[in-house]
Amino acid sequence: MRFNQLISLLKQGQAGLLSYQIGKDPEILSGASLEKANIDQISFLEKGNSLSKKLNSCNAGAVILPIQEDLSEIAKSKGLPWAVVKDPRIAFAEVLETLNPASKKIPEIHPTAVIGDRVTIGEKVSIGPHVCIGDDCEVGEDSIIHAGVVIYSNVVIGSGNELHANCVIHPGSKTGKNCIIHSSTVIGSEGFGFIPTRKGWRKMPQTGIVIIEDNVEIGCNSAIDRPAVGETRIGNGTKIDNLVQIAHGVITGKDCAMASQVGIAGGAVIGNGVILAGQVGVTNRVKVGDGVIASSKCGIHTDIDPGAVISGFPAIPNRLWLRCSANFKRLPDLTKAIKEISKSLPR
Amino acid sequence: MRFNQLISLLKQGQAGLLSYQIGKDPEILSGASLEKANIDQISFLEKGNSLSKKLNSCNAGAVILPIQEDLSEIAKSKGLPWAVVKDPRIAFAEVLETLNPASKKIPEIHPTAVIGDRVTIGEKVSIGPHVCIGDDCEVGEDSIIHAGVVIYSNVVIGSGNELHANCVIHPGSKTGKNCIIHSSTVIGSEGFGFIPTRKGWRKMPQTGIVIIEDNVEIGCNSAIDRPAVGETRIGNGTKIDNLVQIAHGVITGKDCAMASQVGIAGGAVIGNGVILAGQVGVTNRVKVGDGVIASSKCGIHTDIDPGAVISGFPAIPNRLWLRCSANFKRLPDLTKAIKEISKSLPR
Amino acid sequence: MRFNQLISLLKQGQAGLLSYQIGKDPEILSGASLEKANIDQISFLEKGNSLSKKLNSCNAGAVILPIQEDLSEIAKSKGLPWAVVKDPRIAFAEVLETLNPASKKIPEIHPTAVIGDRVTIGEKVSIGPHVCIGDDCEVGEDSIIHAGVVIYSNVVIGSGNELHANCVIHPGSKTGKNCIIHSSTVIGSEGFGFIPTRKGWRKMPQTGIVIIEDNVEIGCNSAIDRPAVGETRIGNGTKIDNLVQIAHGVITGKDCAMASQVGIAGGAVIGNGVILAGQVGVTNRVKVGDGVIASSKCGIHTDIDPGAVISGFPAIPNRLWLRCSANFKRLPDLTKAIKEISKSLPR
Repeated sequence: MRFNQLISLLKQGQAGLLSYQIGKDPEILSGASLEKANIDQISFLEKGNSLSKKLNSCNAGAVILPIQEDLSEIAKSKGLPWAVVKDPRIAFAEVLETLNPASKKIPEIHPTAVIGDRVTIGEKVSIGPHVCIGDDCEVGEDSIIHAGVVIYSNVVIGSGNELHANCVIHPGSKTGKNCIIHSSTVIGSEGFGFIPTRKGWRKMPQTGIVIIEDNVEIGCNSAIDRPAVGETRIGNGTKIDNLVQIAHGVITGKDCAMASQVGIAGGAVIGNGVILAGQVGVTNRVKVGDGVIASSKCGIHTDIDPGAVISGFPAIPNRLWLRCSANFKRLPDLTKAIKEISKSLPR
Repeated sequence: MRFNQLISLLKQGQAGLLSYQIGKDPEILSGASLEKANIDQISFLEKGNSLSKKLNSCNAGAVILPIQEDLSEIAKSKGLPWAVVKDPRIAFAEVLETLNPASKKIPEIHPTAVIGDRVTIGEKVSIGPHVCIGDDCEVGEDSIIHAGVVIYSNVVIGSGNELHANCVIHPGSKTGKNCIIHSSTVIGSEGFGFIPTRKGWRKMPQTGIVIIEDNVEIGCNSAIDRPAVGETRIGNGTKIDNLVQIAHGVITGKDCAMASQVGIAGGAVIGNGVILAGQVGVTNRVKVGDGVIASSKCGIHTDIDPGAVISGFPAIPNRLWLRCSANFKRLPDLTKAIKEISKSLPR
Repeated sequence: MRFNQLISLLKQGQAGLLSYQIGKDPEILSGASLEKANIDQISFLEKGNSLSKKLNSCNAGAVILPIQEDLSEIAKSKGLPWAVVKDPRIAFAEVLETLNPASKKIPEIHPTAVIGDRVTIGEKVSIGPHVCIGDDCEVGEDSIIHAGVVIYSNVVIGSGNELHANCVIHPGSKTGKNCIIHSSTVIGSEGFGFIPTRKGWRKMPQTGIVIIEDNVEIGCNSAIDRPAVGETRIGNGTKIDNLVQIAHGVITGKDCAMASQVGIAGGAVIGNGVILAGQVGVTNRVKVGDGVIASSKCGIHTDIDPGAVISGFPAIPNRLWLRCSANFKRLPDLTKAIKEISKSLPR
């Protein structure tokens, strides 16, 4: 695609195109990082990006720049086609999407798929090889169900969903519009509910359901369990990474982001816009307020106020944790100092 | 189902029914938490449950109560049908089970299933679509094997098992009676055994097997590896949650509970009745005594005495850890105090 | 197999056979640990192995010993056939391999497999039941693809690969020679890349690919994501355990070992020969030098120098961490000591 076509795209997009120079209007085939980009590739820089100093020596065919005059000057002097936008990352996303359009799936039900009774399948749905769909299910229009997916009975898949290969959706689960469930993830399996008795653990039946609201994306090999009663709910626009555990009865707000290997225990309530970094753990039944940011490996044992930035285990304010961690390294010295002081004191 | 039918059930159950009032004998369709229950739903309270104060305003059709007179008085005054039992949680489990009977699978082998040579399949076994069973396997009576499950050769599945969609059982594995293996879990894969050499890592063949005893339940996307020689063994009645790693040669006792994202390294020996909370890690070859409780994110590096309650990383007694963690937050202040003391001392 | 045949094997192997005594030349069927070995089993000891004291009472049919005269003397006096080698563990691996030859898969494409257009399949490839391979793929000679594997379009699987049941390979991924991908693992799925906007998270298209070099082994239920642009790369000979997360754009060196539940965030660069123990986390974009060893649960937030041995969270040198952890347990006492000193000081 010619650079001028990408400029037309950016004019209509969300990135805020401010100025540009098409130059020799190169053919752009794909995106790359500034260091690795070749003549048929486009790259981008953001304000303060450490790669900026490599702009002069880069081999990219074109570049998306932030509002930073020194950078556009370098591009001009190099004869490198450029576009200045308010949000270079958004621009790059729009360009990548245009250069790599999702390959259109032919809307067909593969003959090896096994579909149960009373299943409603919307228009333009693609169902891949060896898919299995149980009785009394619905699949909304424009959804893609890749090979090997298993959907138990009584499941509702919304419109515009993409269910990747070998994921499994258990009875009663419902997804909203435009959700993406990645490979091998399991939605709606029985929660881990057992009652201690003299004869060992007695299973608590898990009769609730899982509800995934609109625009949710869930990574590979994650698990979202259904509860004993009621629901587990993932709020609108929430994004969940690979290998994440969402236990029975958890409720998450809208637009949360949960990185890989996060684990949220039963009944926890997560607010809107919460960000949990990798390997964070949340104890059962705690409430995490709107906008909380928990750094990686954080262990959340108690309710957290909205807007808090927390770290450590148990979680404390991030700034305090940074100072405490710095002091942790000095513990042997502190101990020694105390011993010496004690010795020096008159008895 | 009418409330009086549920009362009949509780009379025969394990919860210890003590007294009840059927009132208008409402039709009960499902269970719910006290806050959310409607007129056709039943709920329960336990002693000291913080929801108790909501009993008066609840909309449930009936309620299961602990031995606590003020609660049954409220129910009486509301005209709310109730049952008082010794163990409300057990009663609720029995009621949920009755209201949500497991949908009977027709005992059939789906025509798309691929079954190897010399496979013995018991009475009333259900084998779903696209299942693959290797040569020389046995599947015990009344077992259900859901869609997409892959069983390698030389595997024994006991009677009354339920293997959920897309789980995988590797050669030599054996399960006991009444086990449940959840979706996408892998049993009996090769352990992570490599020998460092000058030419890189050399694989140690993993020729052992995995044995799952009776009444074991294993969550989604977990992995239980087979060892180089001998066996990996999960004891009778042990319950394992999602995303748990059990490495090669681990032996667990009976009636353990392991929450999500627990990892147990090679050759560790876990006693009976051990509880490991979420994200706990156990180092290779350590011995964890009977009845040990390890709180979430705990890291167990050394042998642990029976009955210990431990926390932190490395694990220390829980009570000590709580005090140490409280002091960790004060480390910057402690450091400052020491500096000031040092300054004030005569030199 | 007779013990003298195993001796012949060891003569040709890499373990460095030094001396041996065939004795009654027992029939050896399998390997076992010294404690559990029976008369038809072989076992091994390494220098300093605590099981050495059990050699005299063992029931093994034959034993592989290190260069340690007291041990061969015991074997002689027991009449126990033995072999002394430089590296007993290598010898045991060679023996196990011989006693448990990989069952030869018949090179066939199962009739239930669904193969796309323009797929090149090498000689002697075995493709199991219900496998699905997309368009424009290559599968190298001698590779085994087990039941239920899903390969998307534009994937290259090298020669001599083994892809275990239900693993999933996403578009653009390439594996080298002799790789093993274990069950339910997902290679090449979309990285977790989202841009915060006023309307919520906006997806960054993930147009890059995953490259797995030669002799790589990846455990069960792991996930290796593709990046927005460029590649995610796993270096030659690297071994990855179960439930490991490798995020988009991570580059690992050669011959690394990553234990279960390790998580490496986006863009991190891992050197050659790096060992990450269980549940270690690596933050995005950090550089971990060649030969670094990180102990279990370690959290790596900053670049790490080559050869460092690190522990804790945030990671510090292992020796320092051991001392700091020992002092952590004494924090309540330290606090008390400081208070008492403060009181005793003149004001």
